[in-house]
Amino acid sequence: MSADIGLIGLAVMGQNLVLNMADHGFTVAVFNRTTSKVDDFIHGPAKELSSSKRIIGTKSIADFVKTLKRPRRVMLMVKAGDAVDELIDECLPYLEPGDILIDGGNSNYSDTNRRTRALKAKGFIFLGVGISGGEEGARHGPSIMPGGNFAGWPHVKPIFQAIAAKVDGEPCCEWVGDEGAGHYVKMIHNGIEYGDMQLIAESYDILRRGCNLSTDALASTFAAWNTGPLNSYLIEITAAIFRKKDVDGEPLVDKILDSAGQKGTGRWTVVNALDLGVPLTLIGEAVFARNLSAMVDERTDASMALSSPIKPIQANIKEFTHAIEQALYASKIISYAQGFSLMRRAAKEWNWNLHFGAIALMWRGGCIIRSQFLGKIKEAFDQDPELASLLVAPYFKEELLKALPGWRQAVSAAVIAGCPVPCLSTALAFFDGYRSNKLPANLIQAQRDFFGAHTYERCDRPRGQFFHTQW
Amino acid sequence: MSADIGLIGLAVMGQNLVLNMADHGFTVAVFNRTTSKVDDFIHGPAKELSSSKRIIGTKSIADFVKTLKRPRRVMLMVKAGDAVDELIDECLPYLEPGDILIDGGNSNYSDTNRRTRALKAKGFIFLGVGISGGEEGARHGPSIMPGGNFAGWPHVKPIFQAIAAKVDGEPCCEWVGDEGAGHYVKMIHNGIEYGDMQLIAESYDILRRGCNLSTDALASTFAAWNTGPLNSYLIEITAAIFRKKDVDGEPLVDKILDSAGQKGTGRWTVVNALDLGVPLTLIGEAVFARNLSAMVDERTDASMALSSPIKPIQANIKEFTHAIEQALYASKIISYAQGFSLMRRAAKEWNWNLHFGAIALMWRGGCIIRSQFLGKIKEAFDQDPELASLLVAPYFKEELLKALPGWRQAVSAAVIAGCPVPCLSTALAFFDGYRSNKLPANLIQAQRDFFGAHTYERCDRPRGQFFHTQW
Repeated sequence: MSADIGLIGLAVMGQNLVLNMADHGFTVAVFNRTTSKVDDFIHGPAKELSSSKRIIGTKSIADFVKTLKRPRRVMLMVKAGDAVDELIDECLPYLEPGDILIDGGNSNYSDTNRRTRALKAKGFIFLGVGISGGEEGARHGPSIMPGGNFAGWPHVKPIFQAIAAKVDGEPCCEWVGDEGAGHYVKMIHNGIEYGDMQLIAESYDILRRGCNLSTDALASTFAAWNTGPLNSYLIEITAAIFRKKDVDGEPLVDKILDSAGQKGTGRWTVVNALDLGVPLTLIGEAVFARNLSAMVDERTDASMALSSPIKPIQANIKEFTHAIEQALYASKIISYAQGFSLMRRAAKEWNWNLHFGAIALMWRGGCIIRSQFLGKIKEAFDQDPELASLLVAPYFKEELLKALPGWRQAVSAAVIAGCPVPCLSTALAFFDGYRSNKLPANLIQAQRDFFGAHTYERCDRPRGQFFHTQW
Repeated sequence: MSADIGLIGLAVMGQNLVLNMADHGFTVAVFNRTTSKVDDFIHGPAKELSSSKRIIGTKSIADFVKTLKRPRRVMLMVKAGDAVDELIDECLPYLEPGDILIDGGNSNYSDTNRRTRALKAKGFIFLGVGISGGEEGARHGPSIMPGGNFAGWPHVKPIFQAIAAKVDGEPCCEWVGDEGAGHYVKMIHNGIEYGDMQLIAESYDILRRGCNLSTDALASTFAAWNTGPLNSYLIEITAAIFRKKDVDGEPLVDKILDSAGQKGTGRWTVVNALDLGVPLTLIGEAVFARNLSAMVDERTDASMALSSPIKPIQANIKEFTHAIEQALYASKIISYAQGFSLMRRAAKEWNWNLHFGAIALMWRGGCIIRSQFLGKIKEAFDQDPELASLLVAPYFKEELLKALPGWRQAVSAAVIAGCPVPCLSTALAFFDGYRSNKLPANLIQAQRDFFGAHTYERCDRPRGQFFHTQW
């Protein structure tokens, strides 16, 4: 009984987390259903650390469990869905009440809600932990979002905070909340990632198809943006992508098919927003934009039937590039504001005590959406933890109003030129709608009352009084 | 055993359907759980028809069933959800195999899939029937979308086609498809209704807040639009709404609170589109726009913190009004194209043999979205039942390209003025994206491969070959 923690599931993410834990002085037992993977790992990437007994390979769940200190910490890194339930059922006979099961996969938060309750009823402690940062993050410092049964947190906190990314000495890992809260916050992270990527893609499209910029010029533009308020991992790798050449010396990005894949967490985020009635327009458009991109044949046929949309944009390129930077930056603020508003609503729905500043800090390093910008979000919530929306935080309010003229210019130029900018334009529509004390929904209510007697409220009467008119 | 059909659930929709059936010569038995409602109905709205024995009130399910000819036709008009299952369970002991149960409520299609199968296994015939047109439609001619177990169709066809709305002599009622297909098509209808209403609201907002048009001028504008390609029930009632005065002589629409309600079918439509991976951006934005409208207090606070967005639009009002008409018309084409594409995908998913021309005809009269325009959609599918998208149908292609300059002008003016037009602008983004043979999703795939090794396809290689780069 010498292992601090055990991990089941030796795909790349699992392997890298084990190496990361061992690097930080923890002893880790490992198991994998296909046991040859245990040998491959022990004699391959884990060779040094296993010879010094920091990593212990095992060939059965019984042996695996025997190596663990009590309370036993068993981390599962397997495909989300039924595989998690099956593996839990396999492990339980070998565990005893008070032991801790940790799901580190991309599980749906509602599954994590259910599992936390079911295992608590049997005396076991379940944690659902969102982990972001891809393979590199897992190896050298991911963002870790733990939730579930709080009783387990003290037992895993030293390990998770040791292996997590650090920003200004602070680990990008803090307790998120009960039951599925950790996986929920990870889901929102992924949704925001969809939004960020689509915003970058639209900016690229305006500059490439609208302004005819070369790939080298695009690389310089994004590199320059990375020194300003947009500074972030995604902008940084975008510059690197534009610099990458194919074997023939041509830009590799131009050879890549414009059909975007998705694994479902972006979709989950939007479905959740629809269920909770929170406008999450930007991520919604980003998910649908990926769907549209995947309709390659249909788009090719339509481009011939309807001719290509682009009219070249005539503008001072330096000034116009700055307008696009402002549009991208302002739209990003909108997207994060929508995401945090959704989390605020979810916290109410499920009675989670979410700390939004802490969440921003967790995303500040280690994960795909890491950026300086998240530090500003943390500050905004530190100043006012009850903030209704990021849009009215003093810092972001100023930033938005400063960016507004360039934002409007970029969107209207794209609209005239025929560059599709669903996310840049929905962000602007949301901003203008959010700060409208009168929207045209009075007409919608009149129509609903006209054809369906759905009744309406009045501006000159208290809320909650409903009126019907014989139109 | 004299009743052609029986109906359970005497809310207004149920009552009006009964009166409509009786008017067309059918004998109808009625029952309601709160039996006083049966008396109220028989001695109230149904007085004449019940004295001539066309409508038969009953006070128990046993008595109700005894009055029905065989095979028995039992129509349920109760709240969607558990109430339907409970009522079915209550009825079954009194019925015998071959009898027909008909759910005419707003049920979710997946419930209808389940119920059709479960009842078929027990020897009963279940139909899930979407009915649109509100109270007026139910009384004088609704749009009726029947689906479920086809074996039941011949037994209800004469009744439903008799009471349905007629367009050019054709009933707005035709068999839709197996299992939940009828309720599914009704759901899409409702989603499209959300889109139509939000598009009208945005056009109104530009003219009111952007151009400072009076309510009288708005009434004239919509009345004029109703004589052109936008001719439809919703445009017609919008003109009537603008003419309606409050008791003080002021326009009533100005007194109505700008907080739009919703009952869920719009949301279901968007969730379904997300699940099937079909870009349904316009209805998505319309649902979220209602959510934003409902955040009245938050918007009021934000309007003070961030100041109101509107800059007056300087334009020749006659020309600009025409540009808005074109934007509204073109965006409506996009919304219907997205809705029909979603149905095409759903038909594949669930093996439904949907006839899109017939669906357009069903919506052509009787329901809230009825319009001349749907006749053009029917023609497009008559010409080519395999049409990939309405956008490439010869008629709509021409209409879109004609409307395009005004559409771009209207959206860009709204963007500059600060009028939120999420649906008008997402429609334009979809059109420009759909006819782009190169979207910027190549960059998204490069990013996904960079940070997550998700691989990508290449333009110069066959589909299905996946590549990974060490970036």
